[in-house]
Amino acid sequence: MHDRNQREICVLGLGLIGGSVLRGAIAAGWTGWAYNRSAVGADAARAEGYDADTDLARVLRRAADSDALIVLGVPMPAMDDVLAAVAAHAPDAALTDVVSVQGPLRPLVARHGLSRRYVGSHPMAGSAASGWAASTAELFTDAAWVVGCDDGADPAVWTRVARLALECGAVVVPAGSAEHDAAVARISHLPHLLAEALALAGAAGGDLALGLAAGSFRDGTRVAGSAPALVRAMCEANADALLPTLDEALQVLTDARDMLARDRSTAGLVEAGHAARQRYEQQQPWTISGIEPSDPDWLERLREAGRRGGVLRAW
Amino acid sequence: MHDRNQREICVLGLGLIGGSVLRGAIAAGWTGWAYNRSAVGADAARAEGYDADTDLARVLRRAADSDALIVLGVPMPAMDDVLAAVAAHAPDAALTDVVSVQGPLRPLVARHGLSRRYVGSHPMAGSAASGWAASTAELFTDAAWVVGCDDGADPAVWTRVARLALECGAVVVPAGSAEHDAAVARISHLPHLLAEALALAGAAGGDLALGLAAGSFRDGTRVAGSAPALVRAMCEANADALLPTLDEALQVLTDARDMLARDRSTAGLVEAGHAARQRYEQQQPWTISGIEPSDPDWLERLREAGRRGGVLRAW
Repeated sequence: MHDRNQREICVLGLGLIGGSVLRGAIAAGWTGWAYNRSAVGADAARAEGYDADTDLARVLRRAADSDALIVLGVPMPAMDDVLAAVAAHAPDAALTDVVSVQGPLRPLVARHGLSRRYVGSHPMAGSAASGWAASTAELFTDAAWVVGCDDGADPAVWTRVARLALECGAVVVPAGSAEHDAAVARISHLPHLLAEALALAGAAGGDLALGLAAGSFRDGTRVAGSAPALVRAMCEANADALLPTLDEALQVLTDARDMLARDRSTAGLVEAGHAARQRYEQQQPWTISGIEPSDPDWLERLREAGRRGGVLRAW
Repeated sequence: MHDRNQREICVLGLGLIGGSVLRGAIAAGWTGWAYNRSAVGADAARAEGYDADTDLARVLRRAADSDALIVLGVPMPAMDDVLAAVAAHAPDAALTDVVSVQGPLRPLVARHGLSRRYVGSHPMAGSAASGWAASTAELFTDAAWVVGCDDGADPAVWTRVARLALECGAVVVPAGSAEHDAAVARISHLPHLLAEALALAGAAGGDLALGLAAGSFRDGTRVAGSAPALVRAMCEANADALLPTLDEALQVLTDARDMLARDRSTAGLVEAGHAARQRYEQQQPWTISGIEPSDPDWLERLREAGRRGGVLRAW
């Protein structure tokens, strides 16, 4: 009934990420169709030859009939209504998402009784632009795409999500949802908060300080240029993981402050920070092999490999 | 005796900045010669046709004889010895520096009895590389070059330093030494400390987090790749101005942390940070005019104009 090689996809929400998933999957030979709330977006997709519709029930019934993989690509505020429709029209369909933070989404999926065939995912790609118009089939080329490895994941659904990621050109990073959320707090949400704080510190120096700003300030504040609504949405959705990360950074900076005041030295922070950046520059993903969904501990082994920097390039 | 149009320059230290000053001034038609402690650097400059010498006393006597502008381009640890030589061989020469932080330098200049004809300066330019080999005549093209406006500055020396900056292709930003140090703490030294802290936070997430890192982490940690000795030297020399700036940033981040914990909101920080970044992006320097060194309050007026984002494009 659930063919591992089934390549039908139903994308809900044609924003930058959802739109790029639809484009990428179809470019890779999948059969795909999509729901978009606004007629403008659906019309734009149809004008390019994509099968897009504003009738969510109809789109979902087709997914149920063909056992397609449903991809949740709507923003979190719209998620409750969309999941209610999935539960009503395609309650047994394979289900994934591309909305980043797993913490708030998993309980919502459970509340709608959809956990059994749900496997979360998160393609680590984006651009300064947003919406269908910015989407491309190549957005995920060589990107990391996290596929959730929480205990109980359905191997058939997991396989379909992993293949979608691989066929869109990404490498698959296996991770549990909690460790995923903790990782993105460190490498995506904390950078945004520090950039905002740095922008504020510069502007508080007035036109003299801003006029002297060069590369370190420009790069360090770049993402403070992102739309506040988007930055808030991602940081606030991940508040539970972001808080301990922010506390950790505050402690590091407070220790550095104390060392600077006491010894007029920044040795501790600067030397450790430089070593950390070098580790980042030198990091090379290695290819996971030899794990099969038929292994009893496959999810645990995948999580463990992901923690050590492993990626799947085939599945 | 002190010709406003005199265009002779004596550069002490042929590193990236000092070397670029020598090259830039000579390209603009100045007569220039230089001292470099290492024979390797001096030989390299001579091989390109520049007049470079390892005999500090001889170089300084020539500066005294021709009333050249002496440019201090040696690192802070070498400054005391170099200033002692200036006091011995060219005590009445016009004197400036290109070593960034003014706080620790001014008392040192005073201790050697050289304050009367000293005007500090700081070209806001650099590169990832260092040393004579990295220096270029174009390094300062369109850069901001701070020229110190502390009370008592000698108008003739000030004019020579400003003209050097302008003829090297820079715009002159007038500022008092304390407000200069406070500004660079905000836009150069704090960015380095935040980048180090962010690199540490990412690496603490292990290979999983580093493997998921994308643009926000890469840009936010870029300057943590700078040599720790250089980062330490500039941050620690400016400890007095950096401490209150770091405290301010810690307070902003602590407030954001409390709002996130209490209200699950990042509104305060994100909206203010975005507005600050926009202010930075939109900042355009305006051209100061109508201030002359014959005005009794010229230094105060220049400082005030610099605070409001004004630059000199001619002097």
